[in-house]
Amino acid sequence: MDAKIRRTESLTEEAVGAGEGTRKQDLTGRGEGAGFHMRRFVMEPGGGMPRHTNRVEHQQYVLRGRATIGIGDETVTVEEGTVLHIPAGVPHWYRAEEGEPFEFLCVVPDDEDRIEILDDGDD
Amino acid sequence: MDAKIRRTESLTEEAVGAGEGTRKQDLTGRGEGAGFHMRRFVMEPGGGMPRHTNRVEHQQYVLRGRATIGIGDETVTVEEGTVLHIPAGVPHWYRAEEGEPFEFLCVVPDDEDRIEILDDGDD
Repeated sequence: MDAKIRRTESLTEEAVGAGEGTRKQDLTGRGEGAGFHMRRFVMEPGGGMPRHTNRVEHQQYVLRGRATIGIGDETVTVEEGTVLHIPAGVPHWYRAEEGEPFEFLCVVPDDEDRIEILDDGDD
Repeated sequence: MDAKIRRTESLTEEAVGAGEGTRKQDLTGRGEGAGFHMRRFVMEPGGGMPRHTNRVEHQQYVLRGRATIGIGDETVTVEEGTVLHIPAGVPHWYRAEEGEPFEFLCVVPDDEDRIEILDDGDD
């Protein structure tokens, strides 16, 4: 395989249907590498994702902005330099705080994902 | 497995022996996740890594600073938002430019790595 050099701003962004004010870019492609790939998420202030589970784990790094995140029973505020490792199946949610957009990298295995929204009331 | 939340500045940094002015942090651990883990590298201006190969691929995201990087026969200048995918075995080198330190994330498979320095003169 050849090396690939890409600029984030030249990559397609897509809205994340299950989220609000949330968009996603694939930075590397599923199946392109050794079993994992990188995505970048941007959440506008006030936007985010409701409580949900995924079939794949997330290894994440916060690039910019601030968000309140729930993982399992824990709620934390995260900002640039926070590292999150969310195992497959653990319920989690995101709410981007006021200010600049909340941006993070999210590395996932290439395995098929399925998102399940947990409709259990307001967090 | 439990979710893990870490702050980059609280994680151990180690000098990279094969590099100059280069240090590394494991953000997630080898064997902790689904077959891959995240590291963060910081290269002081003028520092970097000589031309070398690894046994594992690199999926990288530039966080800060600027560097000149050689990959195969190509030489590029990279900065925040550049995404690099360097397949296993492809020769590459880094030289951090003047200004702020050059910082990037580097995701690798959990497989055993071996670095081989290519002593083929100045780049």
